[in-house]
Amino acid sequence: MNQLPPISGHDLRRATLCQLLHWLAIGRVQPQGLADVYQEAIDRLNPQLNAFVGLSSGLLQEQARAAQNRRRDGVIGRLDGIPVAIKDNFDVAGWTTRAGLPGRTRAADTDAHAVARLRASGAVLVGKTNMDEGALGAVTDNPHFGPTHNPHRHGYTAGGSSGGAAAAVAAGLAVAAIGSDSLGSIRIPASYCGIYALKPTHGEISARGLVPAARRLDAVGLLARSANDLTVLLQVLAGYDADDARSRRRRVAFAPPDWEPGNLRCGLLPDLAAVGVEPAVIEVFEKALAQLPRELGERRSVDFSDWDFARTRRAGLFLMEAEMLSTFADDLADTDHPVSPRFRKMLSYAASKSAADYAIADRVLDAATLKMRRLFAQVDVLVMPTTPQGAFPLDGPVPDSQADLTSFASLAGCPAVSIPMGQLPNGLPVGLQLVGARGSDLRLLELAAVCAATLDVEPAYPVIA
Amino acid sequence: MNQLPPISGHDLRRATLCQLLHWLAIGRVQPQGLADVYQEAIDRLNPQLNAFVGLSSGLLQEQARAAQNRRRDGVIGRLDGIPVAIKDNFDVAGWTTRAGLPGRTRAADTDAHAVARLRASGAVLVGKTNMDEGALGAVTDNPHFGPTHNPHRHGYTAGGSSGGAAAAVAAGLAVAAIGSDSLGSIRIPASYCGIYALKPTHGEISARGLVPAARRLDAVGLLARSANDLTVLLQVLAGYDADDARSRRRRVAFAPPDWEPGNLRCGLLPDLAAVGVEPAVIEVFEKALAQLPRELGERRSVDFSDWDFARTRRAGLFLMEAEMLSTFADDLADTDHPVSPRFRKMLSYAASKSAADYAIADRVLDAATLKMRRLFAQVDVLVMPTTPQGAFPLDGPVPDSQADLTSFASLAGCPAVSIPMGQLPNGLPVGLQLVGARGSDLRLLELAAVCAATLDVEPAYPVIA
Repeated sequence: MNQLPPISGHDLRRATLCQLLHWLAIGRVQPQGLADVYQEAIDRLNPQLNAFVGLSSGLLQEQARAAQNRRRDGVIGRLDGIPVAIKDNFDVAGWTTRAGLPGRTRAADTDAHAVARLRASGAVLVGKTNMDEGALGAVTDNPHFGPTHNPHRHGYTAGGSSGGAAAAVAAGLAVAAIGSDSLGSIRIPASYCGIYALKPTHGEISARGLVPAARRLDAVGLLARSANDLTVLLQVLAGYDADDARSRRRRVAFAPPDWEPGNLRCGLLPDLAAVGVEPAVIEVFEKALAQLPRELGERRSVDFSDWDFARTRRAGLFLMEAEMLSTFADDLADTDHPVSPRFRKMLSYAASKSAADYAIADRVLDAATLKMRRLFAQVDVLVMPTTPQGAFPLDGPVPDSQADLTSFASLAGCPAVSIPMGQLPNGLPVGLQLVGARGSDLRLLELAAVCAATLDVEPAYPVIA
Repeated sequence: MNQLPPISGHDLRRATLCQLLHWLAIGRVQPQGLADVYQEAIDRLNPQLNAFVGLSSGLLQEQARAAQNRRRDGVIGRLDGIPVAIKDNFDVAGWTTRAGLPGRTRAADTDAHAVARLRASGAVLVGKTNMDEGALGAVTDNPHFGPTHNPHRHGYTAGGSSGGAAAAVAAGLAVAAIGSDSLGSIRIPASYCGIYALKPTHGEISARGLVPAARRLDAVGLLARSANDLTVLLQVLAGYDADDARSRRRRVAFAPPDWEPGNLRCGLLPDLAAVGVEPAVIEVFEKALAQLPRELGERRSVDFSDWDFARTRRAGLFLMEAEMLSTFADDLADTDHPVSPRFRKMLSYAASKSAADYAIADRVLDAATLKMRRLFAQVDVLVMPTTPQGAFPLDGPVPDSQADLTSFASLAGCPAVSIPMGQLPNGLPVGLQLVGARGSDLRLLELAAVCAATLDVEPAYPVIA
């Protein structure tokens, strides 16, 4: 191995997590060398991207030194030495959890459950990533911390609310990231930034230490550069947590697939245009489907005529806003550091609503559960674009429909994976979404890996070299 | 067997469901004979008790004839020929579901899931039982259908909201009954009427076709004359229902006990008086505990200092009222058949509350889940009185605390059994409540049967002979 040339910084920033674990294992790269490459890229590129809003000088090197020592001693974790970014609504002990809000200064006492698991696995925490104010939005144009730019095109949104995390992974500033996804906040930026995302089954990863948006929708989500990377991350992070009321013991072992390739029943919406998907996205989607004749098996048109994507997304959003009124009560009251008029206005809408309105909106969760059960009695996987559109200019109008295709899995508690499916005519990426029944996370990821290998979409990173 | 004397009507009305199944099996009683005895008792006693509000003439006999034919043909169900009463908030095809409200006349199209299962098991449906208006209350002093009287003492409450069902079972007008329990509506009347009740694990019995009170609290509950009767009923009624969003597939088979008698860890509240239990009830409770040294195993004082029974019950009640505003929107708007001022006032309280208030109150469900998990890591069963008091006069004040001890299991989704534990100084019964972890329903019932056998409380029925 000594004869092999060193791996370039460029390659280290394009490599998948699994590839890097291999190179670390065979000694072709050391944790400190890897950290130096990422630190250099962050220092150079983050001023343009604004993916990170919390970075401590020397932090990466310090953790990488510890990782190097562990490797020397031969006692390493599953992700030892891998730089991972954390969305700024997770608690990291000693760091401030800003959640995109202006007035927060107090450092967290303890790590969020997911952060503690990452740490225990030897991951190197890169920093806190930018997000929409209070996680309420899908643009990451934060009024207090500035916008995150799409690594594919400056001035375009990276999506949100986990936009900083997705931009960091896409631009080669972190190998992977954790974020939160309540109606699509992980999958939308993955779609816009051309990377891979998993929103797991609700309760699969403990949300303890995550600032709640809507506890019955909140999922800890994962961002990475391949489907297999997501599988490794999920294995590290998933598990029952007695201290998270939403965490559930699994009914059966969290085992890999029992799907037979080629024998899959794949559900498709009969009319994507009717649910607001842009023609250019439909074209990319149909081209991708045509490339996956074997992978997706038998195609079945599924009936969603009883499901109004926009209306149910709005119901979910209202549940979130109503809960945020109490979650962010202190932030709303902080006159020294006022929240934005937009944020205040959105929560005011919920504040004008009654308890009866909440109880009515809440029924959308039951409806989604029933819809999901009937759906997955007919098909194994539901396949559709992740977003109705690609990234749009930060200075332009924000489409209402961003979360229309992602919210169903959130309301139903199902796992959903987004993988890059191709480029739009303007050169920007857009994602393909695979939705499975609750608990099918690993199967879904295996299918995603197979589909991604066939599609062989040009890797999108690091687009800002 | 022909030599054995016929069983008296008195005995047929005192017998447990299990005893009656045995007598039916060996032919000592026929379904029609049984129906005649119950019909005669209903005709004679219901005018005083007002347990039933919906009775069709000849209904019992007609079903009993069919049961007799099935028995002749040798194809019978698990409950074949057993007269069972139905609380008036379950749909029974062709009958009106009044839910204690004044203006409803439309007949239901289909049976509620639980009713369909009873029918399929050969049970004879006796009639619809009286309840609190909209199931909001625990007295069964219905302003439209009149009060149900406690079979132990005329002029006293039977409890509620399933008061009619409990009175019917206690007075020997039905062998068993199904009702609903959202904060205690099955267990409170069982305690006051001296019979047995199970509120199963949330989602264990499908609530489809039950008028919703608070879907996240609503449980189909069972009333009978022995713990073993409850086990048989549960086996008939429990199971996954894909069309009920609250129904859950079980993680493991719904199997009987793995508790070792004598090796049980039994949790007790350190100070019952501090949580509002009346001294006379505490006395009966402590006497009962003293009789169960072996059955309840090791006693452990459990810490409930972080749990305010009254406050959490009120939070649950508010969630219920908020949901009822939409469930009963038509009833509230029906000026020809106005709901009572009390009902309207209670719902007006919820109507004055905001969506944010709902989101805050909703957190009590998470808190109960966490409390429950910690509790059942320390003990196998939580034992306390079912109610802080016994039945009280219908013309007297209504205590606020009726559901304080029952609501915890509802909020936490745990199973809870109530068994008679003795008589208060005024001669009225009061119940002992056993609460177990989710899914421990059958274990809990076995423990209840063992405890009941030792306590050997004088059977309370039929008190109105």
